[in-house]
Amino acid sequence: MQKQENPTYLKAITIRDVSDVLSIKEDIKKGMILILRVTPLAQKDVEQLRTVVEELYSIAKTAGADIARLGEERIIVAPSNIKIWKPEYDLK
Amino acid sequence: MQKQENPTYLKAITIRDVSDVLSIKEDIKKGMILILRVTPLAQKDVEQLRTVVEELYSIAKTAGADIARLGEERIIVAPSNIKIWKPEYDLK
Repeated sequence: MQKQENPTYLKAITIRDVSDVLSIKEDIKKGMILILRVTPLAQKDVEQLRTVVEELYSIAKTAGADIARLGEERIIVAPSNIKIWKPEYDLK
Repeated sequence: MQKQENPTYLKAITIRDVSDVLSIKEDIKKGMILILRVTPLAQKDVEQLRTVVEELYSIAKTAGADIARLGEERIIVAPSNIKIWKPEYDLK
């Protein structure tokens, strides 16, 4: 198989617990694009959700990654070489 | 400002009409990552939605892009240098 130069991975996963942040942090450090569904956590424990979201913003900032909400259900984290056109500008 | 080497854009938009596919096709050709919300179209006209989804799969195939559903609401299209870890594998 042909080896491609530094492919970027886009991973869509669901956060169900605060402990999931650990592996997500590793994925962010690896430069992955993450689409994180937070709805199950929001339904389980709003305080945990708040903690997770704050941690994600902090991890993203440290890693130079960009972060944005995608509707009510999801959060996008993208490495510095990806530019997010923030969904809030989707006004049409 | 420092010029970065080929940044990839990630654009989250809503498809409201079949005519939106035209600009989306241009974005796919430009190698953008697209997260397309299809819910408003699904509510308006299921036949139109089917047409749009079929066109998107065809455009993505022609452009060598990868395409995947993201829940009921959204579709991801990613250029060939981005590898999608398909959401259907999110089984935990």
